[in-house]
Amino acid sequence: MTTANTMHPFDEAIQLTPQGDHYRGQTSAKYANMVGPFGGVTAATLLRAVMDHPKCQGEPLALTVNFAAPVADGAFDLVPKLIRTNRSTQHWSMELLQNDQIAATATALFATRRETWSATEAQFPDLSNLGEGVAMPATGLPVWVNRYDVRTLRGHLGLSATAQETASDTVTQQWIRDEPPRVMDFCSLTAIADAFFPRIFIKRKQAVPAGTVSLTVYFHADAATLTAHGTQPVLGYARANRFYNNYFDQIAELWTPDGALLATTTQVVYYKE
Amino acid sequence: MTTANTMHPFDEAIQLTPQGDHYRGQTSAKYANMVGPFGGVTAATLLRAVMDHPKCQGEPLALTVNFAAPVADGAFDLVPKLIRTNRSTQHWSMELLQNDQIAATATALFATRRETWSATEAQFPDLSNLGEGVAMPATGLPVWVNRYDVRTLRGHLGLSATAQETASDTVTQQWIRDEPPRVMDFCSLTAIADAFFPRIFIKRKQAVPAGTVSLTVYFHADAATLTAHGTQPVLGYARANRFYNNYFDQIAELWTPDGALLATTTQVVYYKE
Repeated sequence: MTTANTMHPFDEAIQLTPQGDHYRGQTSAKYANMVGPFGGVTAATLLRAVMDHPKCQGEPLALTVNFAAPVADGAFDLVPKLIRTNRSTQHWSMELLQNDQIAATATALFATRRETWSATEAQFPDLSNLGEGVAMPATGLPVWVNRYDVRTLRGHLGLSATAQETASDTVTQQWIRDEPPRVMDFCSLTAIADAFFPRIFIKRKQAVPAGTVSLTVYFHADAATLTAHGTQPVLGYARANRFYNNYFDQIAELWTPDGALLATTTQVVYYKE
Repeated sequence: MTTANTMHPFDEAIQLTPQGDHYRGQTSAKYANMVGPFGGVTAATLLRAVMDHPKCQGEPLALTVNFAAPVADGAFDLVPKLIRTNRSTQHWSMELLQNDQIAATATALFATRRETWSATEAQFPDLSNLGEGVAMPATGLPVWVNRYDVRTLRGHLGLSATAQETASDTVTQQWIRDEPPRVMDFCSLTAIADAFFPRIFIKRKQAVPAGTVSLTVYFHADAATLTAHGTQPVLGYARANRFYNNYFDQIAELWTPDGALLATTTQVVYYKE
């Protein structure tokens, strides 16, 4: 048995090979989207390029990824640039290149935390009367969806070819974990932050053309907390604020079952109709 | 009378001079913070550098600014880099340099919108029983605060040297406009997105050391809407999600009085105690 055979598909997908001052990655068919790879894995790979870098200090605090062009199936290059190292923070910029063209840019902020007064203001979502949730259908969806165990409590993907009415809101609440189970880390948390369907699918009950153009993730936990969380699912809570002439935003929280807010995330999404 | 004499202080503060492939700016004493300039004006200036660029297409859609080091009073250089122009979007990266050191990085996404199905899901904040609001005190605060007319409806800055108890929440609702009045545009909206006090001041009723390290603004309106909004105040609604070991996030919405959501914004803020 080789290491490759026992590797989790997510670890395979975000695997990088150092190439002098940059890294070489490869899209994974197991995380294919309708066109190219699932953007959450692309974002995770950009973060990974910094975490693998010998000059990296601290743990991820904030990540913004801008999807400038479709990533084609195949190899890509990641170029991390160390902007500045301060006493407790470190700033990075990254570019993802294919055929010498930039397909994505990103910035990341890393930090070394010290223990301080702490408090959570956001409320763990009310799950009463929502039951155990509905499993995501295995067919008719992009391949990457099968890499997650999703149980939707509210705001499931109910597409209709003849939808005339919009949904009353865009809220989704779902339990989600890697499939097969995998111990949580910053990379998998990043991918899960992008694993909500575009809110316009929920609102309009139709799969109109849509794609994330910019994604920001704030991490509210340290590596030890994520390791302790282990393979448990996280509760995702997502909703939109405004749909306006080709673009909408969506915002989400990711919680542990016992009420620790691991990450908040926001993204702006293109839509066509 | 010269143009300079009639220029609004905000326009003075974000004024840029082309220097070949980059721009030269100058911090404004009228927008001074406790140390260096108000970060909202720095963010606005970074956006301005792209908007002034001869290759700029479309209007601002998303902006992320990472504050890597304090900006010193005086001159600075802004270097915008055009990443990619697509049919309806354009991606930019920017750096702010002082003494050949990067003090801030940013990414911006510009878009040309077409008319589509649109809807606002977020609710205009409930202002009932909040009255006309309380004017911001003119003394004891950084200079930049005087460049805004702020009327706080809820969650005012009530600092106490002896605060023992924390506030029940971190919500602030405030009417805010430029002082003197100035017709809204993307740059002033960007600065206003950063014009909320750090939520930890509200929560702990103390001014602990704190500073924004990363700011993201999503624009949900076009230039014509901002011009039509004119010099009216916007309603700002801000709150925090989690304070955890040196860093917290804050999230805010900016609304017109008649209920149009102009922007949503999120930031991650360092705090010390």
